[in-house]
Amino acid sequence: MSRRKKGAARRSVAGSHAYERLDRVLHEKARLGILTALFTRPDGARFTDLKELCSLTDGNLSRHVQVLAEAGLVEVWKGQESGRTQTLIRLTAAGRAQFLEYLEELEQVIRDARRGAEETDGELGGASGWIAAQ
Amino acid sequence: MSRRKKGAARRSVAGSHAYERLDRVLHEKARLGILTALFTRPDGARFTDLKELCSLTDGNLSRHVQVLAEAGLVEVWKGQESGRTQTLIRLTAAGRAQFLEYLEELEQVIRDARRGAEETDGELGGASGWIAAQ
Repeated sequence: MSRRKKGAARRSVAGSHAYERLDRVLHEKARLGILTALFTRPDGARFTDLKELCSLTDGNLSRHVQVLAEAGLVEVWKGQESGRTQTLIRLTAAGRAQFLEYLEELEQVIRDARRGAEETDGELGGASGWIAAQ
Repeated sequence: MSRRKKGAARRSVAGSHAYERLDRVLHEKARLGILTALFTRPDGARFTDLKELCSLTDGNLSRHVQVLAEAGLVEVWKGQESGRTQTLIRLTAAGRAQFLEYLEELEQVIRDARRGAEETDGELGGASGWIAAQ
């Protein structure tokens, strides 16, 4: 590992760790699970299945789906299936695009962290002179 | 793409999208930025530098650092540097371990989403018969 590369990883660029594209609507843990489940199911998922996939209660899933629907990320369909009323949740095209953007930012977070970890592995646990002088 | 592989990606495993290890203390957007910045700086970061890296106000950074310190993830040092009082924030060993676990779960989210996207690319925009019948 060259000194130069290491210095580059540690440079202090204002806002480099702000991760502005981690939109709070998508980043919330339960909604992130819902979106990931829907992202892999372009035909949508039944409310009951989604509840189970995400380990959420009826009330919690309803609340999060409402937040996502209000943001235009998902659409909610009601219909009959084998004589029973079902609710189907689907990602909208906009939701898919926004989730892809979000995933890219998430990958950036991981790249930033992993790169730094690789480059500082030799120093873990080593206190700086500044701290040692306290 | 084989049918079998596709079926496997879409199987409904209860809780598979719950992502329990996305601890809310670490997952909050601002704290995620702080942790990523600290993870790549094992010697710690000055409060003033961290504020700039994460695009946070004094008040916001203080609040989030307090949450992280109360959870045992970071430690806060006060000291003199060139005659001025400085605050240094560092990840604790426990914080580093927990953040690594968090990163692994984040990578799982991305793997789940990306795998599903690859396998359903040919079907994007295609409505199921269920929806088409509404």
